[in-house]
Amino acid sequence: MKFSQTWQASLLATSDPASTIATFPAEVPGNLQYDLAVHEGIADTLMYSTTAERFLEVEDNYWKYETTLDYETKPGERAYFVAEGIDYIFDILIDGKTVYSHEGMYTKTEIDLSDIAHPGSALTVLIHPHPKLPGEFATPREMAAQSCKPPATYEWDWNPRLIISGIWKPCYVETRTKGYIRNCEPFYTLNADRTTATVRFETDCDLPCTYTICDREGKVVYEGTEPACTLDNIHLWWCNGQGEPYLYTWTAKNAEHEVTGRIGFRTVKLVMNRGGADHEPLGFPKSRYPAPATVELNGRRIFAKGSNWVNPDLFFGRITEQQYRDLLIPAKEANMNILRLWGGSGFKKREFYELCDELGIMLWQEFVLACNNYVGTPQYLAILEQEATAVIKELRRHPCIVLWCGGNELFNDWSGMDDQSHALRLLNKLCYELDFERPFIMTSPLIGMKHGCYVFDDGKQQVYEMFQNGHGTAYSEFGVPSAASVENLKKIIPEDELFPIEKSKSWIYHHGFKAWSEERWLCMDVYRKYFGEPACLEDVVDNTQWMQCEGYKAIFEEARRQWPYCSMAINWCYNEPWITAANNALFTYPAEKKPAYFAVKDSLRNTIASARLPKFDWKAGEEFSFELWYLNDAPVPVSDTVRATVKVGDKTYDFGTWETGEIGACENKQGETIRLTLPETDAHDLLLTLDSANGNSSEYRLLYRK
Amino acid sequence: MKFSQTWQASLLATSDPASTIATFPAEVPGNLQYDLAVHEGIADTLMYSTTAERFLEVEDNYWKYETTLDYETKPGERAYFVAEGIDYIFDILIDGKTVYSHEGMYTKTEIDLSDIAHPGSALTVLIHPHPKLPGEFATPREMAAQSCKPPATYEWDWNPRLIISGIWKPCYVETRTKGYIRNCEPFYTLNADRTTATVRFETDCDLPCTYTICDREGKVVYEGTEPACTLDNIHLWWCNGQGEPYLYTWTAKNAEHEVTGRIGFRTVKLVMNRGGADHEPLGFPKSRYPAPATVELNGRRIFAKGSNWVNPDLFFGRITEQQYRDLLIPAKEANMNILRLWGGSGFKKREFYELCDELGIMLWQEFVLACNNYVGTPQYLAILEQEATAVIKELRRHPCIVLWCGGNELFNDWSGMDDQSHALRLLNKLCYELDFERPFIMTSPLIGMKHGCYVFDDGKQQVYEMFQNGHGTAYSEFGVPSAASVENLKKIIPEDELFPIEKSKSWIYHHGFKAWSEERWLCMDVYRKYFGEPACLEDVVDNTQWMQCEGYKAIFEEARRQWPYCSMAINWCYNEPWITAANNALFTYPAEKKPAYFAVKDSLRNTIASARLPKFDWKAGEEFSFELWYLNDAPVPVSDTVRATVKVGDKTYDFGTWETGEIGACENKQGETIRLTLPETDAHDLLLTLDSANGNSSEYRLLYRK
Repeated sequence: MKFSQTWQASLLATSDPASTIATFPAEVPGNLQYDLAVHEGIADTLMYSTTAERFLEVEDNYWKYETTLDYETKPGERAYFVAEGIDYIFDILIDGKTVYSHEGMYTKTEIDLSDIAHPGSALTVLIHPHPKLPGEFATPREMAAQSCKPPATYEWDWNPRLIISGIWKPCYVETRTKGYIRNCEPFYTLNADRTTATVRFETDCDLPCTYTICDREGKVVYEGTEPACTLDNIHLWWCNGQGEPYLYTWTAKNAEHEVTGRIGFRTVKLVMNRGGADHEPLGFPKSRYPAPATVELNGRRIFAKGSNWVNPDLFFGRITEQQYRDLLIPAKEANMNILRLWGGSGFKKREFYELCDELGIMLWQEFVLACNNYVGTPQYLAILEQEATAVIKELRRHPCIVLWCGGNELFNDWSGMDDQSHALRLLNKLCYELDFERPFIMTSPLIGMKHGCYVFDDGKQQVYEMFQNGHGTAYSEFGVPSAASVENLKKIIPEDELFPIEKSKSWIYHHGFKAWSEERWLCMDVYRKYFGEPACLEDVVDNTQWMQCEGYKAIFEEARRQWPYCSMAINWCYNEPWITAANNALFTYPAEKKPAYFAVKDSLRNTIASARLPKFDWKAGEEFSFELWYLNDAPVPVSDTVRATVKVGDKTYDFGTWETGEIGACENKQGETIRLTLPETDAHDLLLTLDSANGNSSEYRLLYRK
Repeated sequence: MKFSQTWQASLLATSDPASTIATFPAEVPGNLQYDLAVHEGIADTLMYSTTAERFLEVEDNYWKYETTLDYETKPGERAYFVAEGIDYIFDILIDGKTVYSHEGMYTKTEIDLSDIAHPGSALTVLIHPHPKLPGEFATPREMAAQSCKPPATYEWDWNPRLIISGIWKPCYVETRTKGYIRNCEPFYTLNADRTTATVRFETDCDLPCTYTICDREGKVVYEGTEPACTLDNIHLWWCNGQGEPYLYTWTAKNAEHEVTGRIGFRTVKLVMNRGGADHEPLGFPKSRYPAPATVELNGRRIFAKGSNWVNPDLFFGRITEQQYRDLLIPAKEANMNILRLWGGSGFKKREFYELCDELGIMLWQEFVLACNNYVGTPQYLAILEQEATAVIKELRRHPCIVLWCGGNELFNDWSGMDDQSHALRLLNKLCYELDFERPFIMTSPLIGMKHGCYVFDDGKQQVYEMFQNGHGTAYSEFGVPSAASVENLKKIIPEDELFPIEKSKSWIYHHGFKAWSEERWLCMDVYRKYFGEPACLEDVVDNTQWMQCEGYKAIFEEARRQWPYCSMAINWCYNEPWITAANNALFTYPAEKKPAYFAVKDSLRNTIASARLPKFDWKAGEEFSFELWYLNDAPVPVSDTVRATVKVGDKTYDFGTWETGEIGACENKQGETIRLTLPETDAHDLLLTLDSANGNSSEYRLLYRK
């Protein structure tokens, strides 16, 4: 039985944990910084202007949680204090005496209270100041380079510096009898044609258990005291767009305790890309071919399409299942089959993984390293091993996770790690030992994989040309930014700063400028190149959102055209942790869809008519051209009739129909190239429509100038 | 005390190990196939024509060794049968009863005889047929893809198919008392400035020991019963050309037993190349930078220069320390500091590593995987883990080994392994666990590293142009072939096949043709392009050896010029296991230097004047040009005066002197480019001489035609 506790929080001094500055109610699970904001009356306006800078002042403080233990035990029971995650360095004191000290937010804390506490005892969780690597750094994130906390909170180009801490996962007193099942985990192997599963339960319990496995309809397919069985004619777990994410449920129980969970049967590999990648390079002297980057799920090569997930809240201890759901269901609806859980953002709560299991969203899960050189000191490696071991054991049961990755952009000059880095060799070793079948990569990008760019036009090329020449096996990050809506901008930018847009403190603090370079993420330089000086805020919002829509369509569809040489398109990024002034995300915080969300959703439909366009901006008299394509990620063949029309102002050009003929499962087909000398009209845009007889139509809106 | 035994060998039937075909004396350590050749009277002519094809007939046979155990024990002693290596699958029987079965030639066999045998017992080693992966293959080597035997013996382009087996390392009965030291290994750490070593002995013995460490002059620097000490003012172990390969000796002893060994104190890392490699790639979308490929020894970045070592004998069980010495001393004399022990050839005998420790030859040691897809079946992974564990524990004490590598060319299309391959992830894990500090790479080439080409002219480019555009961080294989000397050719090619050279069986069997493609390795296609139809055998020998000399000079010096972007030049290959008709090696079997050996020796002097030449062949009237360079791999600055002269026929052109000024330690300097319109003369060659005031002169002999 679980007993939740009532907690008080205190902000303590920076140097003296015995000196209390303020005491206030604490939400558990939650985050101390948010509790303080509530106490100080700024919680509702935290996103406004630079309010959140308040937290910079308390970065180096101690904090504590206090409770008077409230539970009861029956004869034969022992009571445990359980905290599933405490962020980040902490001591636990009972009646003033330290009984446990720990570093690491992903390891479960379990303390047998039986001999050291009783109902009514005072329990204190003393949280230490945020770990920061000492020294002078070029960027704030470098302070995270010996920490296993999510580095994004140390400041990132879309995340303010706001390093949070606290009891971020469930925390309770649990009473346990002899029959308590400390752990139960099913493992399985599939036969060669994936029709039969051999299941084996590993159980940590002092009493024998009975095991049950039920199918999705609740029909019992196994029941017995033997912790192993063979199931025939199984349903496989498939990702979104390729089949059903079929889940079985299992139960292990004895007279005193019962635990339950789910199994999704599937095989997953990361295999060499085709289309020539597996024969590169061709000439002498010769290097290696690219790293494998194709997800093979249940023996089927899949084009992985999706987005990079970031924390959906600055205070991720407060995140509820509903918040996850509000973002994950739209991912499925947008035809995505993968999310990359990038190394800067850390591991999620249990509910996140369960939802992805249910929705068929594959996960590329990174360890908590990003853009730094995590030097393998004995202390760092010890914490990393402890945390990684806990996480692998907790998460390996989820069919949704298809890939472990050491972390983000570690093999680039801004990080400075490499294949020899002990931290990454350790993670490879742990994944091999604890999760033999699941693929592991050290970082992204590996050779062949590509990151960037993150703007519509980098001054040399538009995204159209850039990705047509991208030669990537996997585009695992790329972005096109846009401004937030006017309504959302008003929530974060004071009225007197709103327009004309200048590099003022609120715009900067919310990443409109100087986020990564001077003009990010509003990119007014790009704006002016295509649209001139904006007349009003609405112009900036509308036109940057237009570029974001067309830019993302161009990249996602181009990546799909490059299949099977390319096998992944995962944009940066999906969501955001607070309202940004401008961002590459498809959502504005908390889960408001930007127009680009709908554009990406269209481009990711399994089966679409698609146009390969050379560029965005066109002029009267110029030769407009595009290639007709038909993209098919579905596991079944298709055929269609596609009619292409171009509309400029009051002129419409009909290019007739393309009978695609049969296009194989997971194959694309190129049609003819269509050319048109553009007329002179007063229009400001050009509309290209590909009408599909089967409802797989596409539309592109391009810039037109006289 | 060790008792050597007298052995008889037998060739048994293919299907029935009880059926004996022939019995003959056995050399131990040695190889059964050689013993059979002696018995059959063909041992002395094995290299002649196709004599060695005899062994194809006995590939699938069982073999056995038999001895009558000859030893005596004193009271308190136990007797052990010890075989340091038996190749490859075998059973051990005592008085007809199987007491041990094993797969793997790198694991030591130790059997306590005390309760199962006595002096006079019959001991049999029953060797199973060679492991061969069943199935149809494009190449013979693919049969080795589930075996931990050296795959080169399954046939390679310079090695006939000759899969050997037998007791290939020392084998004896050893009597042991309670004080027997089963193992003793010193470990050390150095302080930050590498002046102090903290040494710790790990000893497996039932009695306490006394430890002694002496310096090179025999002076005792530590003596005590404590298995740990700190040594100040240590001498470091350096590779050839960078300092002394200083070795300390240590002893561990008790009243009954004493073991001894050596320690070389040094640190080694594989670090990112400089010269821009650490900032690649520059544009978006962006991949990773190349894999690190610079050896950092004792904190100093070193240009690694040397060669690929192959087995120096088809029957490597018969190799003696003297044979190793005859090849390793010339490596040191040729200014080499590294040898790559390529995955096709397996691990060497103990004496090899001890010599490299003494000579300061760094070793790049690969595991026994090459050019195949070693699929991670449970059986293969189990044997690989057992063998790799034994090897790492045995070899990690050698300072000469600077790099572990999974194997050769595994990430290329002819192999088909990749970063996900379980065998390579296992090797990473084992090296991390058992040998934390020593670098590990999965294969060669990794990204940035290059292999090939292996001819002077590939039909598109000569090696000059190819390597000037090579853009490699490490050229870990490249080759230029030449014919063996006329005298050596006569040892292997019957007189009636010698000239004119045709694609006859002896030339083919000795790799003159069809070794890798139709024209390898005589490369008569290349020959004819530059020299026309040969008039005699001597012409072929002289001119291919000329091309080999100039080709190797061009590549080695060009790789050095590319420092620090490039950090390695390791040619394919150093030696050969038998007399080949033509080969990329610098030696003809057993240890006869080809002219290219001396050319490479010249190019690898630490400090040389060097010319960057655009090509090999020149014509009257053409503008001949070259860049002056001064190359300095030495850890000290240099300066020099260099005079360039060109001699064509009776004409000599003096281009004056270049005062280099000071050139830093491990730095190069480019001088001016010199141009000359070539005169018309009757000469057939052009001699470019760079005369150095300090004795670092160089000479290039190029082809000249009217």
